Amino acid sequence: MVRRSGRRPGNQDTRQSILDAARSVFAEKGFDQASIRAIATEAQVDPALVHHYFGTKDKLFLESMNMPLNPAELIPKALSGPREEVGERMVRLVLSVWDSPAGTAAVALLRSAMSNERLARLMREFVISQVLRRAIAELGIQGEEGALRSALVATQIAGLAVVRYVLKVEPVASADPETLVRAIGPTVQRYLTGELWSPAQLRNPDEGDPH
Amino acid sequence: MVRRSGRRPGNQDTRQSILDAARSVFAEKGFDQASIRAIATEAQVDPALVHHYFGTKDKLFLESMNMPLNPAELIPKALSGPREEVGERMVRLVLSVWDSPAGTAAVALLRSAMSNERLARLMREFVISQVLRRAIAELGIQGEEGALRSALVATQIAGLAVVRYVLKVEPVASADPETLVRAIGPTVQRYLTGELWSPAQLRNPDEGDPH
Repeated sequence: MVRRSGRRPGNQDTRQSILDAARSVFAEKGFDQASIRAIATEAQVDPALVHHYFGTKDKLFLESMNMPLNPAELIPKALSGPREEVGERMVRLVLSVWDSPAGTAAVALLRSAMSNERLARLMREFVISQVLRRAIAELGIQGEEGALRSALVATQIAGLAVVRYVLKVEPVASADPETLVRAIGPTVQRYLTGELWSPAQLRNPDEGDPH
Repeated sequence: MVRRSGRRPGNQDTRQSILDAARSVFAEKGFDQASIRAIATEAQVDPALVHHYFGTKDKLFLESMNMPLNPAELIPKALSGPREEVGERMVRLVLSVWDSPAGTAAVALLRSAMSNERLARLMREFVISQVLRRAIAELGIQGEEGALRSALVATQIAGLAVVRYVLKVEPVASADPETLVRAIGPTVQRYLTGELWSPAQLRNPDEGDPH
């Protein structure tokens, strides 16, 4: 069905066939279980051709989702630089991408993932596991702690996107990016590198727990 | 169209007519602009009857959205008690509501608001302006600062809901509520009552700003 019968596809047709097949296989199997081989089979082309046109599975996924920017390339940029400013840099990067025309696609994808279980799974597997956790590992945070810190960062970043771009709650919707960097950067910083559990942050130890 | 012709509606029919009219008028005008009078006109009943069945506009709105719980009653509860624990209490309350069977409706509403501009407006106007800002005013925070702090709290709470209940990112999706209270409470606390701007939180002043 993907490849039109009756004529040999030219380059554009082949490329489009692979993208169609990728969308279908990613939706069916999720990001982790989808393979270049399965996508090639679905598109009726040689796997080498998929690599030739799109390089890695990450890149094929991003193109099939119409994502013009690759978070796997962007996030390591935010992580390089002074460790105590990584939260600020991550919020600044996210805003610079989402405020740009290219960001519209990312927001549209988040919006769609809210009502589409398959897209939600793709987003979870790709953005969280592939991108964010890998990046956090570069900060030297591993295993369960890395997974928790990644997911906490995701709560703040996803919430910022929802409130600024989807629900459009003022003054966050139209705030200057640097205002948000200063207000929200410390949250991301703490989730990445800070103390998550200290009760001293929450209450005076002399008071005890009233609950 | 709302009231069936040919017979006099009984109580259940009247109640349902008012709910149908409320949904229609709220969707059309948003929460702020919708009036009990306009809803009564749409339902072809006396405004006193709307008050009789549903009390306030808040309560009518919640029933028309199938919301079993009233945030206007819940949030002030979270705000009462020691001021330095309000962030923890708010996260604990939100999780106890959303983890309960009744919470399904709240999550469904958030999900729908992501793809429906009218619902997004209703949610924004009702939850943010009516509930959260009013509650924050009780903490003695007013005006522009109150609006900013409310919206920042909304980024963290909405993001927690999206990651735990919609995208279902582990370990946040299945974490013990108290784990999340301890990890996320301090964020909400800072957005409510903490220092939002201090550059000292972000970098050593001796280093200067490298950007």
